[in-house]
Order: sequence, then C-alpha cells, then structure tokens
Amino acid sequence: MPRLLGVLGGMGPLATVDFLGKLIAENPAGRDQDHVPVITYSVPQIPCRVEAILGNGASPLPAMVAGLEVLARAGVEAVAIACNTAHFWYDDLARVSAVPILHIADAACADIAAGSCVGLLGTEAALQAGIYQSRLAARGVRSLVNAPELRARCVLPAISLVKQGRAAEAGRRLEPAIKDLLGQGAETVILACTELPVALDAIGSDYRRRVIDPARALARAAIAWSFA
Amino acid sequence: MPRLLGVLGGMGPLATVDFLGKLIAENPAGRDQDHVPVITYSVPQIPCRVEAILGNGASPLPAMVAGLEVLARAGVEAVAIACNTAHFWYDDLARVSAVPILHIADAACADIAAGSCVGLLGTEAALQAGIYQSRLAARGVRSLVNAPELRARCVLPAISLVKQGRAAEAGRRLEPAIKDLLGQGAETVILACTELPVALDAIGSDYRRRVIDPARALARAAIAWSFA
Repeated sequence: MPRLLGVLGGMGPLATVDFLGKLIAENPAGRDQDHVPVITYSVPQIPCRVEAILGNGASPLPAMVAGLEVLARAGVEAVAIACNTAHFWYDDLARVSAVPILHIADAACADIAAGSCVGLLGTEAALQAGIYQSRLAARGVRSLVNAPELRARCVLPAISLVKQGRAAEAGRRLEPAIKDLLGQGAETVILACTELPVALDAIGSDYRRRVIDPARALARAAIAWSFA
Repeated sequence: MPRLLGVLGGMGPLATVDFLGKLIAENPAGRDQDHVPVITYSVPQIPCRVEAILGNGASPLPAMVAGLEVLARAGVEAVAIACNTAHFWYDDLARVSAVPILHIADAACADIAAGSCVGLLGTEAALQAGIYQSRLAARGVRSLVNAPELRARCVLPAISLVKQGRAAEAGRRLEPAIKDLLGQGAETVILACTELPVALDAIGSDYRRRVIDPARALARAAIAWSFA
C-alpha cells in the first residue's frame, strides 16, 4: 500500500489542481489503484503570501498551520505544498508539523549540474525568500533574475491572469521574460511560481523545453516517497 | 466566508482532478479568496465499483464510509462525490454520513425539460444503478441507452483509456456511441461516467454541445451551496 500524501493547497486553487494532475501524469500507473493516495486541503481564504512577505499584510502562517493540522489528523504521512511562495514559511511549518514536509526547491534543484547557470522566474516575494538561490549556490550553480521592470511587466501580470482563468494570455505575457533570461546566458529557467507552467502549457510554448517546473518535480518526489 | 466542501474522490483519480478543475472553471471568481474552500479525499486503493455492482468483487462501501468520516472530522459541511457509479451506494452513504451529500444526478437533471428524450452513456453498473432513469422518469423525460454490443465496444474502452491517460484515443472511441443515441432521437446525452467528458474534451469534440456533463453540473451545485 503506497503511503498517504497530504497536499496543503489553495495557494492558489488552480495551481493546486495543476499539481494534483501532475501527481497522476508523472506516475506510469495504468490502474486507479496504482496512483498516490492523497488528501488535499485547498482553502484559498488565507492572507496573501506576497503581501505578507513584502510587509503589507497579515501573515498566512496561522492558516497554513491550521491546514497542516487538519492533514496530520486525517492521517497523512508527509505533506507537499503546491506553492513556491508559501515555502518562505517552510522552516516555521516544519518546526510545528507532525509529519515531514517535502520541499519544492529540493525537488526542483535535484537534477541541476554544478557549474551551470539557471534563470529564476517568480514573484518578488518568492525571489526575496531565496529558497532557490541558496540551494543553487550550495550546488555551485549561478542564478539570474530579470530586471525588476521586466519582471513587473511580464511575470506578475502572467500570474494574475492565470488566477483569473486567462492562462493563454498569461503565456503570451510571460514568454519575453524567459527569452530575456536565456539571452543573458541561462541554460535553463526555473518557473518559481506554480501559476507559470500553467501559462506556458496553455499556449503550447516552445520554451517549455528550456524550463524546470518545480510542481512537476515535487510531484515526482511525492510519487517516489509514496511508493518507497 | 463560503462553506467548506468535502470531495470524496479517487474513483478515479483523474476524474477527481477534473471535478476540482470544474469547481474553479464554473466559478466566475477573479480572486483566489473567492473560490470554494475544499478538502479532497482521493484514495484510489478501493475495490472496483463496477465489479462490486455486477456481483464479482468486494464492496467499496466500507472504504467510502471511511473517507466520508475523514472528511466530516476535518470539518466539511457537505460532500460531493465525483463518480457516477459510486452513487449506487448513495442511500447507504447518506444514512451514515454526518453531513449532507450532494447528488450528482440531481445536479445533472435539474435543467432537463419534461417531455424531452435523453440518452445515457455510462458503465453497465452505473446504468444498472438507475440513478438517472428514476429521476428522468419522475420528470416525464424518456431515456435511451445504446445496445449492449455498442456500449461494450465504445463506452467501456473509452473509460479504460482515460484511466490510462490516453484521453484522445478515448474520445475517438466514444463518439460513435453518442452519434447512435442522437440518431435514435435523443435531444441531449448525459455522460454518466466522470471519465467520459475528459475523453470528449481531449479531442475538442463537436458533440460536447449535445451532452450534459454531470461533474460540471455537480460543480455548479457545489458552488451555489458553498456561497448560499
């Protein structure tokens, strides 16, 4: 029997559904019974993570802790969080959680070779949290970000459009930011916000071959954990 | 604050993800916080519903009851079940459930006019359960099914292909069964298995304009309930 996974979701709701889809798509199982058993807590009525990190709003930590407790009481043996920005509070969550929490950046960075150069796309808040930069530096990988102006023009609107269900528009808005990072010498680009892969998928973007989708990497890690 | 919905899923896992996507798509909300809060229990390690109804396997009822109990303890105020065939056990589940269970066939039949003729596509087991026929008859609506041979050739393979992640093949396999029902005089066709809309979506089928997707109808009912 595979182990029961908990998913702390709702940040946002569509990214959570996207993650659950990847948990199926990345598993070669042919039968229902061979898929990961999972309980998902997706309650989007939670303070905005971005505003909290930037110091403009209430902390989402109590709501996240409440979700973790519901999952642990329901019997999950580990938790995945389908939101990069929420990992800003990873250490606080891990300290109080009754079960281990799989880290999205550990999963995304697992296969990146030392000496390479990686671009990072995400909210200001996610980048400020530094969850990718610290792991990449520790592996001897250089990281690049867009200039703030380009980020404001491409990345934040793309995230917002996905949350509004306008994923194709989001994809077209996002592509120039990826092109910019590749032009600066990045060999691959980490899409450090769970909404961004949804945007590229919606337009079948060619850039998908040049990016790492942390949610997909987390799904693979969760499948490996469940069946270990 | 919208009310917390429970989803009893995993039957199958992809249909559950499809339902959660519809819970977002059918909601005009522009902000994360305006989406339905939901806890999803998706544990596919449960006896096959079809085999149980046909008398060839263990009952899935104890596993479904266990899932309901987890959801109720987690604080949900109503439950939706994203599987038509599972509604064979609706009365048994409703009897023991601490919270109301929204019925997928009530949602799907809500807008069908008296005097019309409706085709039904689903597993033998789902059709044998009669959850649609009884509701349609009560509304003065005639219902039609495919001949068993055509059903065996089109519908069951389509469901199986979706479960294997081969949704486009499933869509092509399914279309002749819909064409047959329309040719017999059905004005609309109820896709009484949650895998079937996934199949038609995968090929952008023109028949989508002639069908009712009970999962989509259930999602609308759940949104209305949550925000009532």
